Amino acid sequence: MQFTVVTIFPEFFDSFLSCGLMAKAVEAGVVAVSRVNPRDFATDRHHTVDDRPYGGGPGMVMGLPSMTAALRSLPRPGKICMLSPAGRPLDQRMAAELAGEEAVTLLCGRYEGIDARLFDLFDITPVSVGDFVLSGGESAAACLMEAVARLVPGFMGKDASADEESFSAGLLEYPHFTRPEVFEGLPVPPVLLGGNHATIAAWRRQRALETTLARRPDLFDTTPLSPDDAAFLRAAPRTRPGRNLHLGLVHGPVLLKDGSVGTVSLTNLDVHDIARVSRTYGLGGFEVVSPLRDQLTLAGRIVDHWCTGPGSRSNPDRAEALSLVRLHESLDAALAAVSADHGCPAALIATSAKGPATLSFAAARELIAARPALLVLGTGHGLADAVLARADGVLPAIRPFSDYNHLSVRAAAGILTDRLLGDAM
Amino acid sequence: MQFTVVTIFPEFFDSFLSCGLMAKAVEAGVVAVSRVNPRDFATDRHHTVDDRPYGGGPGMVMGLPSMTAALRSLPRPGKICMLSPAGRPLDQRMAAELAGEEAVTLLCGRYEGIDARLFDLFDITPVSVGDFVLSGGESAAACLMEAVARLVPGFMGKDASADEESFSAGLLEYPHFTRPEVFEGLPVPPVLLGGNHATIAAWRRQRALETTLARRPDLFDTTPLSPDDAAFLRAAPRTRPGRNLHLGLVHGPVLLKDGSVGTVSLTNLDVHDIARVSRTYGLGGFEVVSPLRDQLTLAGRIVDHWCTGPGSRSNPDRAEALSLVRLHESLDAALAAVSADHGCPAALIATSAKGPATLSFAAARELIAARPALLVLGTGHGLADAVLARADGVLPAIRPFSDYNHLSVRAAAGILTDRLLGDAM
Repeated sequence: MQFTVVTIFPEFFDSFLSCGLMAKAVEAGVVAVSRVNPRDFATDRHHTVDDRPYGGGPGMVMGLPSMTAALRSLPRPGKICMLSPAGRPLDQRMAAELAGEEAVTLLCGRYEGIDARLFDLFDITPVSVGDFVLSGGESAAACLMEAVARLVPGFMGKDASADEESFSAGLLEYPHFTRPEVFEGLPVPPVLLGGNHATIAAWRRQRALETTLARRPDLFDTTPLSPDDAAFLRAAPRTRPGRNLHLGLVHGPVLLKDGSVGTVSLTNLDVHDIARVSRTYGLGGFEVVSPLRDQLTLAGRIVDHWCTGPGSRSNPDRAEALSLVRLHESLDAALAAVSADHGCPAALIATSAKGPATLSFAAARELIAARPALLVLGTGHGLADAVLARADGVLPAIRPFSDYNHLSVRAAAGILTDRLLGDAM
Repeated sequence: MQFTVVTIFPEFFDSFLSCGLMAKAVEAGVVAVSRVNPRDFATDRHHTVDDRPYGGGPGMVMGLPSMTAALRSLPRPGKICMLSPAGRPLDQRMAAELAGEEAVTLLCGRYEGIDARLFDLFDITPVSVGDFVLSGGESAAACLMEAVARLVPGFMGKDASADEESFSAGLLEYPHFTRPEVFEGLPVPPVLLGGNHATIAAWRRQRALETTLARRPDLFDTTPLSPDDAAFLRAAPRTRPGRNLHLGLVHGPVLLKDGSVGTVSLTNLDVHDIARVSRTYGLGGFEVVSPLRDQLTLAGRIVDHWCTGPGSRSNPDRAEALSLVRLHESLDAALAAVSADHGCPAALIATSAKGPATLSFAAARELIAARPALLVLGTGHGLADAVLARADGVLPAIRPFSDYNHLSVRAAAGILTDRLLGDAM
């Protein structure tokens, strides 16, 4: 296949193209790489390709005249991609798609960027190699070319080699070992020395599953898993950040319909649904808070019915969930109980459909990986301002850009827990 | 700062280090890059660094003796990172962390990988530049060095330039324009020519918000947004894939407690909660299916009470949600109604806590971006096998590796919808 790189630093690629497998692929004619410098198409004496941005600001912007002339000079541009942090992230699937093209042109921006009207003049796909900023697109273009080229038939000596690597099977790679058999006291895992291919394949699959579970559980979303895989993962030991998280359902102080602060009565299904979420996600507990003694008595009777009474016999699953429920007269009592469970002070995370948020979901995930936390939801029309004010952090609204944010507290508890813990942990 | 690259292709970096801003940074002493070749530490006549993997399989593995000798020869290794697709993904925050180190050593693997015992001998952080596979770590190491080096004080002429770029503010970059003012009939946006700095800053912020909303809404999770930003995003026109998605709540045929197939009765709160999810996520509709005529009559009375009866006056928000409810005697009738709404056949997506899954969440997101779909959930103990069998796809269990999967259908509807649509769309 044909790559054309449009760059003001064509020499950047000299050594990239002259060593390792890339050099061999070029030599073998598997891929061809040509380079075009927009500077050669500049018409002024200084071969200027950049200029100051309209509207001011730091840095320089690559202009249209030399860039369009460079692109129009290409006899066979094929699919045009621009390396840009604002692009679609490069992944193995995109690499495979590009490997199926006959020709791919890569635009490498420099300075602050390229005049945006270029996108009106050409059909350009912005591609990113990751959420980081480079000085120009050249290093990213090298990654893209290498990732794509190695999927072009004939690139590698053995085609099997490309297939067994990370992401090809949707999992991170299993660990490799080579001679010596013992190095500084560290032996190779005995299973690899046994010569039983089925056992070795199973061992490698399990190590790949383990590594993926520990580092990139998000990959399981798109990875086909066998029943054996699923059984292994269910039994695999792992850190369970869910243990650090307790859900709290606050019935007072909360906002009432008229905007005043007060207490609302308990809803049976809230207790059931949030207990089931707590059990399904392996949470540390579910704390129900009401300042009204008779409401706590009612909640206690519901819990007893399902945990030790007739309900426990007709539906043992429900007993398992409701046994996570604890009843508290105040938020302080709930926080104290969670702190006592873990032997260290629990953070208070609040939720609000109105904002402003002070804790992103990403930051909340880090928090609960490190220490216990009580995530409180308000019944009625949400938590009172006093609760938001004392919280260590307030999560964003679940749908910050929606004009309608009236989820039930049952659905909100499930969605928030899922955003914090996901499917695998 | 000091970079040391451990690589069997030291010449790979020759031109990377001799052009552009990286060359200037090296020349100015802002960064220093040394290269170490494990081959120089091999003790055999052929300078062998690789060997066949224990347990068999394609490709070669870099061995421990030369690699450990190379690492131990470094006077000041600093933080050791290995470029690997199995590593923590490089992002701007990691780049900033590494820019604060005095020394960073980058291990570039080749062949299938490096003998895994190396991780027992040294404190090594695996770092990935993206979910794609390279032949070796060199191109990735170039990206990492460039991303890190440009954050080291003194790297760029103007420090402001580094700050204004993508991800520095947590958003994708706004578009840039430079001379000529009109190119092939395309004008620069007039606001940029006006010279009003506040207006220009606001315009650029809004373009950055728009681009981020369209391409990377996930970035909003960690981006601080002002009330103006949020107001702009709420009003921004955008594709709403939620319009293509309808939730379906099936009361029969479903699994009963004893494993047989039958019909369960309607629960008032199911209708309310799932209607509220449907409205909050901007779905196309909420289809309630029951083969029992009197159950549909009951559901109709509930809906009427809240949509047109007394409930609509006391709680207009609820009317907005429940107006999305439609009642059907069969799944076929529900599918026909959804297809008729959109003028093309709707896909049937089923859910099951038991599996096996045939449609990943990622694939389901692509499906509903392209065509209408009815996502059905079963009451009772889940959808009957006949429904799973006729579905175009079955989503994975919400918690596939949990030993307990007994969420309420209300919580499950919220979680599944959130996984498919997220917070911004």
